[in-house]
Amino acid sequence: MKKTAGTKPKRPALTYKDAGVNIDANTRWVGAIESAMRGTYGPRVPKDRHGGFAGLFRLDSNPKLFQRNYKKPVLVGCTDGVGTKILIAIEMNRLDTIGIDLVAMNVNDLITCGAEPLFFLDYLAVHRLDPEHLQQVIEGVAAGCREAGCALLGGETAEMPDLYRNGDLDLAGFAVGVMELSGGIDPSRVKVGDVVIGLPSSGVHSNGYTLVRKLIARAGCKLDQHDDKLGETLGEAVLRPTRIYVRPVLAVMDRYRTKKAITGMAHITGGGLMENLNRALPANCDAVLKKSSWPIPPIFPFLQELGTTRQEMFRVFNMGIGYVFIVRPLFAEGVMKVLSKRGEKPLVIGKIERGAQRVRLR
Amino acid sequence: MKKTAGTKPKRPALTYKDAGVNIDANTRWVGAIESAMRGTYGPRVPKDRHGGFAGLFRLDSNPKLFQRNYKKPVLVGCTDGVGTKILIAIEMNRLDTIGIDLVAMNVNDLITCGAEPLFFLDYLAVHRLDPEHLQQVIEGVAAGCREAGCALLGGETAEMPDLYRNGDLDLAGFAVGVMELSGGIDPSRVKVGDVVIGLPSSGVHSNGYTLVRKLIARAGCKLDQHDDKLGETLGEAVLRPTRIYVRPVLAVMDRYRTKKAITGMAHITGGGLMENLNRALPANCDAVLKKSSWPIPPIFPFLQELGTTRQEMFRVFNMGIGYVFIVRPLFAEGVMKVLSKRGEKPLVIGKIERGAQRVRLR
Repeated sequence: MKKTAGTKPKRPALTYKDAGVNIDANTRWVGAIESAMRGTYGPRVPKDRHGGFAGLFRLDSNPKLFQRNYKKPVLVGCTDGVGTKILIAIEMNRLDTIGIDLVAMNVNDLITCGAEPLFFLDYLAVHRLDPEHLQQVIEGVAAGCREAGCALLGGETAEMPDLYRNGDLDLAGFAVGVMELSGGIDPSRVKVGDVVIGLPSSGVHSNGYTLVRKLIARAGCKLDQHDDKLGETLGEAVLRPTRIYVRPVLAVMDRYRTKKAITGMAHITGGGLMENLNRALPANCDAVLKKSSWPIPPIFPFLQELGTTRQEMFRVFNMGIGYVFIVRPLFAEGVMKVLSKRGEKPLVIGKIERGAQRVRLR
Repeated sequence: MKKTAGTKPKRPALTYKDAGVNIDANTRWVGAIESAMRGTYGPRVPKDRHGGFAGLFRLDSNPKLFQRNYKKPVLVGCTDGVGTKILIAIEMNRLDTIGIDLVAMNVNDLITCGAEPLFFLDYLAVHRLDPEHLQQVIEGVAAGCREAGCALLGGETAEMPDLYRNGDLDLAGFAVGVMELSGGIDPSRVKVGDVVIGLPSSGVHSNGYTLVRKLIARAGCKLDQHDDKLGETLGEAVLRPTRIYVRPVLAVMDRYRTKKAITGMAHITGGGLMENLNRALPANCDAVLKKSSWPIPPIFPFLQELGTTRQEMFRVFNMGIGYVFIVRPLFAEGVMKVLSKRGEKPLVIGKIERGAQRVRLR
């Protein structure tokens, strides 16, 4: 191959920093995020973290306790991003809550099988590493981890000026939990007559934002304008962070694990109730939900009026229910009480009928 | 806020698919990746995967074995991406090996503390979901997982046409491993006189590509032209996948764990030997490396000649050594033999001297 290099180029020597990657800023950034991480550590993160290439997490601070609680320990792992909700956060220049969304999307998935979250890691990809600006993101992640009771064990920040446009960033997360094999959720146990209990969402959560943004753009709406029906600006309504359901769900699981009162759980993400709750059902059951049994937050009719169908709304968004329990009828009242005592507003939204693993709305 | 929605818009109803997200293609894609994932499963992935919101992994298929091997089990987690090496893969339209790089970057970090990799998850963000095109990526990830002996437990594919340009994609990974607390690597055990053994890299691996690409672009080199010194095209040389060091490292650790012959390990990533091997050192030791003790692959002088300094090369790239052991002198020959028997080409590249946690080149 021909190149000019053989003849001692006159060009000045190119460094990694010239090429657009600032190792020094990265070093400062690592220092900055360590304090955010430390705020999430419990006794299960060893103080003496050998090596520094990876994060360590003890399965239990007391080995005897661990061996008693876990005869057949099963690790649970999941990964998710925040989708294009990040573009709304960037447009509003409010990066302080998107990290909460990130943790929520992962840990809410994790707990549906009956697991307890242990630790979290994040991947942050940016055009340019601006530690002061990005600190909001990582502090949001740490706040989410504290709410979810898991340690922020590490992360990666990738500065890629040629892949991400100026000001853009992407965010992915990864959560690991543990459960005892026999204590997990088993969809084959769901039976006709089981009660479906929903926990309210805080709004759109973190799915469907490509549609949200197109609807807003096509209608010419502005994110910073106040709307009376919403009671806030459109931007505030669509940026509200995803609820983290770990505490109420672990409270219910702890109380009813031996009684096996909970036969199914679902985190309502992209695909809405129709395409998430069905994953918690056995082949011969339907979940039949009564639409009038829960209030639909004002952001959903607002978005629908911008120009889509009610059917599409239910196919894409959570429509007000962010997390669902399927409960043996005998224990439904007790589960409602445990949730209410913790300040939740649980709602009986339907029941299990004979069917074919579908979610039907009535 | 003012909007036209109150007056029944004449616009056609917008769907999620119109907005640029194709849920059906996603469903097909999920089916396609499941076969790639299944090829990585061992007996520790429960066949009956409850719920489907998260991946499950048994800590051991035999609980008695687990309780004997792990008195104080410590989980190890890490996350990394492939950086802008992805842009070279996209430019060459060769996406079949970038998944190997992804797994390598994560599991090579994971094993430095003495852990055994258990499972892996990937995050793939794309402009547009093209299942046939992207299948190469996920098959590369699965191939990397098989090489590393870990299960590909799940992943997330995010279609974000407004964040990624047409044809662009990003890739991040997460790896989890386990080790017994007392069997981990402890940098405080490194002593003056310990021997530094290196394993060759396969080339640039997955760090420094923003500089690689700037050097290539500035010199006007073409990726598809053959170069005699490289013995291949420039594109082939810079796209060669990162070596996965799991098998040789676990072989050495298994053989010498009770003798505690290995006092330190390092995966040589961004920052080169200088800023990675130092993380395996205690405060009062230096690693002194003899530059002439290992061959520098031709891609490195090639890149340097395009216009940067030798100092910068050593500060950014692995320069031919991808993984390093620090070994008690008594066991150095034995470690070399274990590695050679497995087809590795280990090299004694230096030793530990009194110092201040730095890497010095001689």
